[in-house]
Amino acid sequence: MIGGGIGAFIGKTHRVAARISNQFELVGGAFDADYEAGKQFAIQEGIPLERTYATVDDLIETEIKLPENERMNVVAIVTPNFLHFEMAKKLLQNNFHIICEKPVTTSSKEAIELQNIIEDKKLIFALAHAYTGYPMVRQMRGMILAGEIGELQRIDGQYYQGWINPVIHNKKLLSKTWRLNPKISGISCCMGDIGVHAFNLIEYTTGAQVTKVLSDLNNLLPDVKLDVDGTVLLRFEGNYKGVISSSQIASGEENNIVITVYGSKGGLRWEQENPNFLTMLIEGEPRRILKPGNAYNSELAEISYTFPSGHPEGLYDAFGNLYKGVAKAIKEESFNQAEFPTIIDGVRGMKFIESVIQSNAEGNIWIDL
Amino acid sequence: MIGGGIGAFIGKTHRVAARISNQFELVGGAFDADYEAGKQFAIQEGIPLERTYATVDDLIETEIKLPENERMNVVAIVTPNFLHFEMAKKLLQNNFHIICEKPVTTSSKEAIELQNIIEDKKLIFALAHAYTGYPMVRQMRGMILAGEIGELQRIDGQYYQGWINPVIHNKKLLSKTWRLNPKISGISCCMGDIGVHAFNLIEYTTGAQVTKVLSDLNNLLPDVKLDVDGTVLLRFEGNYKGVISSSQIASGEENNIVITVYGSKGGLRWEQENPNFLTMLIEGEPRRILKPGNAYNSELAEISYTFPSGHPEGLYDAFGNLYKGVAKAIKEESFNQAEFPTIIDGVRGMKFIESVIQSNAEGNIWIDL
Amino acid sequence: MIGGGIGAFIGKTHRVAARISNQFELVGGAFDADYEAGKQFAIQEGIPLERTYATVDDLIETEIKLPENERMNVVAIVTPNFLHFEMAKKLLQNNFHIICEKPVTTSSKEAIELQNIIEDKKLIFALAHAYTGYPMVRQMRGMILAGEIGELQRIDGQYYQGWINPVIHNKKLLSKTWRLNPKISGISCCMGDIGVHAFNLIEYTTGAQVTKVLSDLNNLLPDVKLDVDGTVLLRFEGNYKGVISSSQIASGEENNIVITVYGSKGGLRWEQENPNFLTMLIEGEPRRILKPGNAYNSELAEISYTFPSGHPEGLYDAFGNLYKGVAKAIKEESFNQAEFPTIIDGVRGMKFIESVIQSNAEGNIWIDL
Amino acid sequence: MIGGGIGAFIGKTHRVAARISNQFELVGGAFDADYEAGKQFAIQEGIPLERTYATVDDLIETEIKLPENERMNVVAIVTPNFLHFEMAKKLLQNNFHIICEKPVTTSSKEAIELQNIIEDKKLIFALAHAYTGYPMVRQMRGMILAGEIGELQRIDGQYYQGWINPVIHNKKLLSKTWRLNPKISGISCCMGDIGVHAFNLIEYTTGAQVTKVLSDLNNLLPDVKLDVDGTVLLRFEGNYKGVISSSQIASGEENNIVITVYGSKGGLRWEQENPNFLTMLIEGEPRRILKPGNAYNSELAEISYTFPSGHPEGLYDAFGNLYKGVAKAIKEESFNQAEFPTIIDGVRGMKFIESVIQSNAEGNIWIDL
Repeated sequence: MIGGGIGAFIGKTHRVAARISNQFELVGGAFDADYEAGKQFAIQEGIPLERTYATVDDLIETEIKLPENERMNVVAIVTPNFLHFEMAKKLLQNNFHIICEKPVTTSSKEAIELQNIIEDKKLIFALAHAYTGYPMVRQMRGMILAGEIGELQRIDGQYYQGWINPVIHNKKLLSKTWRLNPKISGISCCMGDIGVHAFNLIEYTTGAQVTKVLSDLNNLLPDVKLDVDGTVLLRFEGNYKGVISSSQIASGEENNIVITVYGSKGGLRWEQENPNFLTMLIEGEPRRILKPGNAYNSELAEISYTFPSGHPEGLYDAFGNLYKGVAKAIKEESFNQAEFPTIIDGVRGMKFIESVIQSNAEGNIWIDL
Repeated sequence: MIGGGIGAFIGKTHRVAARISNQFELVGGAFDADYEAGKQFAIQEGIPLERTYATVDDLIETEIKLPENERMNVVAIVTPNFLHFEMAKKLLQNNFHIICEKPVTTSSKEAIELQNIIEDKKLIFALAHAYTGYPMVRQMRGMILAGEIGELQRIDGQYYQGWINPVIHNKKLLSKTWRLNPKISGISCCMGDIGVHAFNLIEYTTGAQVTKVLSDLNNLLPDVKLDVDGTVLLRFEGNYKGVISSSQIASGEENNIVITVYGSKGGLRWEQENPNFLTMLIEGEPRRILKPGNAYNSELAEISYTFPSGHPEGLYDAFGNLYKGVAKAIKEESFNQAEFPTIIDGVRGMKFIESVIQSNAEGNIWIDL
Repeated sequence: MIGGGIGAFIGKTHRVAARISNQFELVGGAFDADYEAGKQFAIQEGIPLERTYATVDDLIETEIKLPENERMNVVAIVTPNFLHFEMAKKLLQNNFHIICEKPVTTSSKEAIELQNIIEDKKLIFALAHAYTGYPMVRQMRGMILAGEIGELQRIDGQYYQGWINPVIHNKKLLSKTWRLNPKISGISCCMGDIGVHAFNLIEYTTGAQVTKVLSDLNNLLPDVKLDVDGTVLLRFEGNYKGVISSSQIASGEENNIVITVYGSKGGLRWEQENPNFLTMLIEGEPRRILKPGNAYNSELAEISYTFPSGHPEGLYDAFGNLYKGVAKAIKEESFNQAEFPTIIDGVRGMKFIESVIQSNAEGNIWIDL
Repeated sequence: MIGGGIGAFIGKTHRVAARISNQFELVGGAFDADYEAGKQFAIQEGIPLERTYATVDDLIETEIKLPENERMNVVAIVTPNFLHFEMAKKLLQNNFHIICEKPVTTSSKEAIELQNIIEDKKLIFALAHAYTGYPMVRQMRGMILAGEIGELQRIDGQYYQGWINPVIHNKKLLSKTWRLNPKISGISCCMGDIGVHAFNLIEYTTGAQVTKVLSDLNNLLPDVKLDVDGTVLLRFEGNYKGVISSSQIASGEENNIVITVYGSKGGLRWEQENPNFLTMLIEGEPRRILKPGNAYNSELAEISYTFPSGHPEGLYDAFGNLYKGVAKAIKEESFNQAEFPTIIDGVRGMKFIESVIQSNAEGNIWIDL
C-alpha cells in the first residue's frame, strides 16, 4: 500500500475491504510521506518494518528482488490525488498490479498513458469506484444488459451531499479544506469528487457511453474557487437522454446517490443509502423490490453477497467485492469487466470531468466526451 | 361549468372538489359541445335543464339576468385547452369569477390579456394547479418563506410518468392521442402537461422566480411530434441554481412528482405519491418527517387538512382546498395568494412552456423568462 | 342524519363521504340534542328547517308521511355510542335504511336484536368501519379469497395511537375525556375504539372468523378506569394463529394500523398511513407493491378508486366508497358484503370487545367468541 | 475456533467479523469433527497445521503450553448447539476467553453453571447476539436509558422469517432440516432460534427485564415436531406490558426484525433490514430519523460506526463491533455490558426459551422467568 498511514480514512477502507475479501493481506508499503510516521503505523498494524518503505522507489527496488510467491502482488495507491499518476506509472513499469483510488490521475492524458502501459503489459489495474461492488448495482447492470427493461429511454443520476455547506459559510474552514483548493484538488470539486461516481454508475449499470455533456455548475459564493454544485445534461449514442444532478451544498444530505434508468418496458432504481433494495418498475404491473441473497438474482449479484437474504451488507462488503474480483483476475489471468472498474473507467471519468468543466467555462455548451 | 360532461375525467374532479369544499354546488353549465349530450349529462346529475346551456354565450346571456344571489357566482372551465382563452375572456368581461383548468391559454400573450381584464375588473381567477392545495406543500412554502432552511442553494423538481410510453410504441394509439397532436395540444406535450406543474410547485414553495431556462427535450421517436421527455436547467435571481427533470416515457412511473429545495440550513422534500409526509433535512440533526394535523404546522397547512393527524387525505381534498380558497376570496373580496394559483401563475406557466420550447429549438441555449 | 351538528367531527366526515359518493344529499335530520343548536346547524348548512327535527321520533313521524321519492331513504346515526341502539331500533322498525357509526350498540345482545329486525325487514344497515372502503384493503381481501397467498398461516394486526398518552398523565384532561369514562364509553376504551378496527380488518381481508381470544390489557395507571393498551391472542377455525397489538399510549403514533397476513405462498401487508400501497411478499420472488388505478387489481378495488394511478386518495374517499355501496345496495335491493360492513360485522365486533374484556378480567384465559 | 470448517456459514461470519474488528487473527482451531476435513480447511485458509487440532482437548493441551503472547487468547465456539456447553466448560476451566454462538447451552441450568465459572475466574465470555453490535441499536439503548422517551409504556418485538415455510410443506426437506429435529435443535425451533433474538434486543435496548411470559406457539402441521410460529405476552417489573411476535412461516419474509419501544414522551423503532435508520416518534413533534456517523449520537453508537455518515454498514460490521468489544475488554480487564452480550444474556435467553415452551405446554399460562 502506498499512503494510507495513521488517520487516513480511505486507507482504512482499503484495509478492511482487503480483509473482508479474504484474498489479501497487507504485507508492507510506503505508508506516509513522513517515513517515521509510516514506520509507527507499521508497528501499530503489526506490519514488518523491513517491508515498510520510505518511498515508492525503495518499495519497488526491494520487492522486485523477492521471490515471486513472496513479493507484493498488488499495490493499493491511496495517496492524495495529484500523486497517483507518477506512482502508478512506476509501479506498472515494474509489473505490479494496482488498485488505485479515484480519480485515477489529474487528466485524461495521463490516464491514457497509464492505459497504454497496462494494456501493453497485461497488468490488472482496478479503480476504486466501490459502489459498483454492491450486489444490487451488479444486479441492475445484469438486468439492463439482458434487456429486462427494454430499450433505454431516460437516465437519471443524482448525487447529493451536504458536507461542503458548513465549509463555504466559514472562512476558516474554507481555507483549510483541500477539496476546495484547486492546487491540490484539481479542476473540479463537486463533479470530480462525486459527480464522476454518478457518471461511472450510469455507464456501469447501462453499459452505455455518454457521448456529449452540457453542464451548468455553481460555486455559489465568490470566494469558493471550485464547483460545489451542478447539473449535467447527457447525450448518448442512442436517441435517449439523461441528466446528472450533483451537489455538495444540499444541506442535510449525507451520501444520497440515486441511479434511475428507464427503458421501453420499465425502470430500475438503486439508492446508495438503502443499498440492499433494488426497485423495478414495470409497465402495467406491480412494482418489484429485489434484494440480495435470492435465487432470482444474477450469478454475479449472488457471488457478491454472502449472507442469507435479509441480512444487510454495506460499503465495506461492496469494496471487498472489488478486491475479490482483483484476486480472481490475477489468478485467472483474465477478468470480467463487471467485477471491478479498470483504467478504461478511469479514462472515461477524467474525460467526463474535463468536459463538464469545459462546458461550463465556455457558456454551457455541448462538449464531446 | 363549461365542459366536463359525460365521461370527462377532469370535470368530475372539479365536481368532487367543489362538493368537498362544501362551498359550491353545481347549478348549471354548458357541459358539452353537443347540446343533446350536455342535456343528458344534466339529467344524470340532477341539474335543472333550464340552466343547461348550448353555449357559453347562452349561459352568459341567461345567467346575468338572474338576481345576484341566484346566478352562478363562479364558472369552472374544463374544456379542451385551446378553448380556454375565448371562453374565459367572455366570462370575465361579463363579470363571472373563474376556476380554469391548466394550461390557462395557448400562449403567454393570451394569458396576459386575461390578466389585464382580471386586474381591471377585480375578479377572482383561479388556476387548477391542484398540487398546491396539499397541506404539506403549503407547509413547505411556509417554512421556506419563514427562513427555516436558510438562504436557497439548490432546487430540484422531478415529474415522471410512464403513460406515454405504450402510446409512442403503437402507431394506432399514437394517432389517437390528442396530447401528442400539436393542433390540439399546442407546442409541448411533456413540458406543457407536467413539466409546468413542477415549475409551478417550485415557484409556489420557494416564492422565488425562475429568470432563465436552458432545456434539452426529447421526442424519442421520429413520428412523435412533441416532446415526451426533457430536462430544464434553471437560473434564479439569486446565485442558486436548479433543474426540472420531467418525462412521460419513464415506464412504470405513475405520477411521481418530487420537489426538493435545499438552503443554507437544511432541505425540504415533498413527494406527491406520499403527500401526507414532508421530509426536512437539517444540517447536523436527525431528519424530520412532518405530517398534517399537527400543531407544529403553519395555520394555512392546518386549515387545509380536516382529519385528526394520521388519517390520509388525497388529491380530491387538495383540490377542494383550492375551491375553499376561492369561496373565501369571493366572500372577503381579497385573497391570500398561497390559497390558490391565479392568473399570475397562468402567465408564468405559459412563459415557462414557451421559453423551454424555444431553448430546445434554438440549440439548448439560455432563454429569459 | 341523527347527531352530527356543529362541531361534530364524525358528522362532518359522513357529510363529506356522502357528497363524494355523489349518491346522497343531506336533506334533514335531528342534528343535536339541543333543538336550537340543531336548527342553527341546519341554517348554516342550508338544510330546510321544516326537515330539521327535535327528536328521532319527530323525524320518523313526519318523514314516513312523505311520498316515497321525497322522504329520507337512509338515516346516518352519528350520535354518542350509548344512543345508537334505541335510535337504530326505532328507525328500522319504521323501515328506514341506516348507516351507523361504530360501535353499533353497547352489547352484542343489542346488536343481535338489531340484526333480527334487519334480516326480518330486509333493510340495508351499514356500519362505518371506513377502512374497508380503501381500494387496497379491498384488493387484499380479493387476493386472499382468491388464494393468491395460499392457505393462511399467520395473521398480525396492529393499531397504535398515542393520543391517550397526554390524557392519562394530566388529571384534568383525564376527567374530561369521555372515552375513558365507563359510563359513556362502555366496557372498553382501546379495544372498543381501535382494537375492534384491527379485528374487523382481519376478518374482512381474510374472510376468516376468530373463534377464541386471550387478552392481556393494560390501564397503565391506577386512576385510568379502562384499557388504554393491550394484546390479544387469536385462534381461528384452521390451525393458523394470530395476534392483535393495540395501544393508545404508543406516544408519537398517529393512526398506525398495519394488517399483515401470511399464507403458504406469500404474504400481504397494508398500512393505513400509506393507504395507496399494498405490499405483497412472495416466496422466492421479489416483493411487489400494488397501487390503485391499475388493471392488475380486482374489479372491486378499481371501482373504489377514481383517479388515474399515482394520484393519492384518502380516508374521505374510502368512506365515500361505503356510501356508494349503500346507494347501490338500496337501488339493487341486494348487496355484495365486500362493499360495506353490515350488522353482522357489528355483532362480531361487539362479541370481540366483550370477549377480550372477559378474558382479561378472568386472568388471561381463552374465551370463545 | 471450534467448528466453522468448510461450508460452515456461521464460522465464516465470525472470521469476517474478527478480520473487520482488526483485533484478531485466526491462528488455529478444531474446525471439524472430521479431523481430515478440518486440516483441509486449515490449508485452504492458510492456517498452520500444527495449530489445527482434532479435538478441543488437544487444542487445550497444546495451546496452554505456549507462551502467553503466542497462545490463542480467545476461542470462538461455532459448533452445533448441543456441543456448546461441554466445550465452553472445558475451555473456561483452562482459562480461555470465549466468544460463543447462541444458544449458549441447551438449558438454563447449564448456562448458570458456565456463569459461575466465568464469574469465578473473571474471564470474558461473549455471546454472539450480533444485532446488538449495530450502531443504531446501541443508540436506541442509550436514548432509552437516558430517559429520552420517558417512562416505558409499551414494548413490541417482531421477528418474521419465511424460510421454514417451504420446509414444512415438503416431507423430504422436513426430514433433513436439523432445526426441526428436537434431538439436535432442542426444545424449540422458532422461539429458540429467532424469538430469543427479539427477547435479547428488548432487554438490551430497554435495560428492562421480562418477569413473566404467556405464550401461544404453533407447529402448524401435525408432522412438524417443534414450534415454527408463536406469540409471547410479556410482563415486566413496571406496569407496562409487551409482546413478541415471531414466525418462521411468514412466507416471503427474509429477516424482518422490528423492535419498537414506547415511553411517556415518545417512541423508538429499529428495523434490522434497514439497520442504519432509527425512527424516533415524539409526542407533538415531527418524527425524527437518526443515522450513524452523526455527532448527535451517543459515543458508543459512534465508535460502532467507522464511515462518514451516509455510507451503509451491515451485519458483518455489527458483528465486528462485538469482537472489538471483546478485544477491548481483554485488554482493559473490565468491560461495558453494552459492548457485547455476556453469559448473563445467555442465561436470560435460556430461561426465556424454557418458560415460553412451558407456558405453551401448560395451556398458555403465565410463567415466571
